[in-house]
Amino acid sequence: MSEPGWLAALRDLVDPEDLLDDPADCWTYGYDNSRQHSAPQAVVFAREASQIQDLIRFCRAHRTALTTRGLGTNTTGAAVPLQHGIVLSTERMNRLLDIDPREQTARVEPGLINQHLQDAAGEHQLFWAPDPSSAPFCTIGGNLACNAAGPRALKYGTTRDNTLQVQAITGAGEPLSAGTLTRKGVVGFDLMRLLIGSEGTLAVFTEATLLLRPRPQALATARAVYADPQHAMAAIEAILAQPNLPCALEFMDAACLDLIRDDGQVDLPENAQALLLIDIDGDADQLPQISAPIAQAASTEQCLDFQIAFGEEERETLWQARRTLSPALRRIAPEKINEDVVVPVTRLAELLQELDRIRTRHAIPIVCFGHAGSGNIHVNLMPDGSEEQRQIAYGCLDEVFDAVLRLGGTLSGEHGVGMAKREHIARELDPTSLKMMHAIKRDFDPDGILNPGKNLPDPDKFADPPNAEM
Amino acid sequence: MSEPGWLAALRDLVDPEDLLDDPADCWTYGYDNSRQHSAPQAVVFAREASQIQDLIRFCRAHRTALTTRGLGTNTTGAAVPLQHGIVLSTERMNRLLDIDPREQTARVEPGLINQHLQDAAGEHQLFWAPDPSSAPFCTIGGNLACNAAGPRALKYGTTRDNTLQVQAITGAGEPLSAGTLTRKGVVGFDLMRLLIGSEGTLAVFTEATLLLRPRPQALATARAVYADPQHAMAAIEAILAQPNLPCALEFMDAACLDLIRDDGQVDLPENAQALLLIDIDGDADQLPQISAPIAQAASTEQCLDFQIAFGEEERETLWQARRTLSPALRRIAPEKINEDVVVPVTRLAELLQELDRIRTRHAIPIVCFGHAGSGNIHVNLMPDGSEEQRQIAYGCLDEVFDAVLRLGGTLSGEHGVGMAKREHIARELDPTSLKMMHAIKRDFDPDGILNPGKNLPDPDKFADPPNAEM
Repeated sequence: MSEPGWLAALRDLVDPEDLLDDPADCWTYGYDNSRQHSAPQAVVFAREASQIQDLIRFCRAHRTALTTRGLGTNTTGAAVPLQHGIVLSTERMNRLLDIDPREQTARVEPGLINQHLQDAAGEHQLFWAPDPSSAPFCTIGGNLACNAAGPRALKYGTTRDNTLQVQAITGAGEPLSAGTLTRKGVVGFDLMRLLIGSEGTLAVFTEATLLLRPRPQALATARAVYADPQHAMAAIEAILAQPNLPCALEFMDAACLDLIRDDGQVDLPENAQALLLIDIDGDADQLPQISAPIAQAASTEQCLDFQIAFGEEERETLWQARRTLSPALRRIAPEKINEDVVVPVTRLAELLQELDRIRTRHAIPIVCFGHAGSGNIHVNLMPDGSEEQRQIAYGCLDEVFDAVLRLGGTLSGEHGVGMAKREHIARELDPTSLKMMHAIKRDFDPDGILNPGKNLPDPDKFADPPNAEM
Repeated sequence: MSEPGWLAALRDLVDPEDLLDDPADCWTYGYDNSRQHSAPQAVVFAREASQIQDLIRFCRAHRTALTTRGLGTNTTGAAVPLQHGIVLSTERMNRLLDIDPREQTARVEPGLINQHLQDAAGEHQLFWAPDPSSAPFCTIGGNLACNAAGPRALKYGTTRDNTLQVQAITGAGEPLSAGTLTRKGVVGFDLMRLLIGSEGTLAVFTEATLLLRPRPQALATARAVYADPQHAMAAIEAILAQPNLPCALEFMDAACLDLIRDDGQVDLPENAQALLLIDIDGDADQLPQISAPIAQAASTEQCLDFQIAFGEEERETLWQARRTLSPALRRIAPEKINEDVVVPVTRLAELLQELDRIRTRHAIPIVCFGHAGSGNIHVNLMPDGSEEQRQIAYGCLDEVFDAVLRLGGTLSGEHGVGMAKREHIARELDPTSLKMMHAIKRDFDPDGILNPGKNLPDPDKFADPPNAEM
């Protein structure tokens, strides 16, 4: 790539130590955890909101694409600068500005790492609910952009449910504040929840006030094993019929259990074909009582084995099944296609049957696990690395999406759309919704400079695409 | 009013039994609970979504204002047809279409009464969280339009948090579906929460799928009385620091207690200046244990009297204080101005002090109560009926809003904007947010026919106002 025409002007705008423009330096900022790649022509590290505003105005003036990036843990390519241009990294804007234990809020910059917030909140016996598996490496800005969730979303909601207010700068370079510092509010339209989950296509977050919650004293973990996934699904329904929700309700299918058995560290009944891991939180002295109805719901007649642990070490042993799974998956199929579809909880059993049919029809391994209590299943298609299997896997994906939509589901529960699912979402959204989303995109980002090529499919007519001047 | 030019065409469109066009019949549809009045020129009763679509298209073609109305319990004039035109009543579109106890969802038409839904859900040991005090008379469509809440919002959230999917028709006459039938979803922008709370200015709801929850077995009620409102505020903070939230945490100030004493039905300590009512839900056998930390937090040294009741009758006795309040308020000041401001919970004490200063400065009675656990206080200014006091009251209102915004609060927690607060919200929202809201309004309602004169203040430039052809 030759040097873009705007680069000299960018060097005037940005402090040299906050700018990368050597192609070799820029290269690493072209990836995220999707393993897609497209190199930016410059990387800018913002340290304050005014710099972000200046940069967005610069990008408007030069019609240059701007892709905001936290620490790149996204799995859908949402942080990959598809049209090159500039990557805005928030990693140096990572301060915890304020934590108010009485009000149970934290005011943060977008580059703060989720785990760092949890650590600081923990000192006050508080926590922030979103707990994606990338929590040790992902930023709050990324959590906001993707409406991150995790197992605890079942009881405590997603990022959208745990944010009070955001400060952001639109694609027009205009600052706004959305949401309220209060726990309720109905003044004006809900712009905050509109921005959360919009994957950096409408505005760039510069600050957020997050709602923390008092941390329950204690945690119990239960592990229930079934000879048939359908029995596990029946148990999930019975558990959810209790007023006390568990704070995690995770499922693993027979293919997962085979991988775990191969690993040799976890002891499982021979005929186990499905497993539930259940976390229950509450006051230490009440936890056995709180757990009792959940344990009863899980210990159906068809349950092969039920164990519950209240101590840290025993709990870890039960979670071992889950912890050995992800590395095993990556080992056997480094190019696995990992989808995170959701269906209504009562349709999970049908979804699993449908996935069985797809697996058999195409002779491709499919491994399913995930946040079943929310109806959210991570469907992993496992091609063997050959081009033929890769083609088959993408064909299967199409059938998986069909099944999910037929069952009243949605194509993504928490990973988002990014590049990966962009061409599929018109199957789920109706034409009026898409039209309104495109109109809102134009309202917030009239030149289409923010994260182009992501989230929404291209509209029939749109502002001229930004020009990367390559 | 002479007959508008479009009325003959409307008579062709709508079945005579679903149309009112006699001014005397139309008159009653010009009110809501705000006691504002502006008569429509016609009232149309819809029975299905296609009729709503036809009507919106008719209004676009004739540039006629369309104000959608449930049962008119709104207190801000949101259902008053300010520009006359047509009122669309959903009261004949009131079916509970489906209740799915396994999935814990209800699919409803917009005219269904909240209480009817609660009754049907109750048969399955389920409930829908929003519980505005108008629940016996208000519709789900109205709850959606206003993002209705109520005491239980503290633990279970507002309408926005308890709705999975809505079907609606935009002001352009185009149908859309927003949200998902699943408990999680991140495909596209969050149009559902954008529409909820937009007071019928963006689209008309034709159907909704609501998230129900398992009904806790039992309820305990506690009543705590304090000699100083500041002590009550300290107790609220201590209660909220517990991981188990009460399902209601209601406050009453000294002026409320005077009214209650006058009524003579409730026995209160002589020096009582503040009262908290606390509802705690849970399993019957665990309720004493669950209540214990909340009771401990409320029973501070400064607490004059603490009572807790687990039986239905005793609970009712404790709630009697609250039940006698509203009729008493209405009796002594039929023209009371009732605001529902919100501040961060830790700023409640300052808000009460500020209200004391306003009360003293202007010698006007101010009575405060409300959902203090959410920071949401109903501030009742009580002019005596004279024009002079009325003027003073409206002047005070200005000072109340100033204080609320200075404390980081919002002008409305649940009542909404409607006509009443429309000219005030630019004090709270920044110019970019207002500009984006106006842009979104134009996207959804290009001719400005839906509920004109409500919610957002007029933009500097806007589509020509609809013409009522009076």
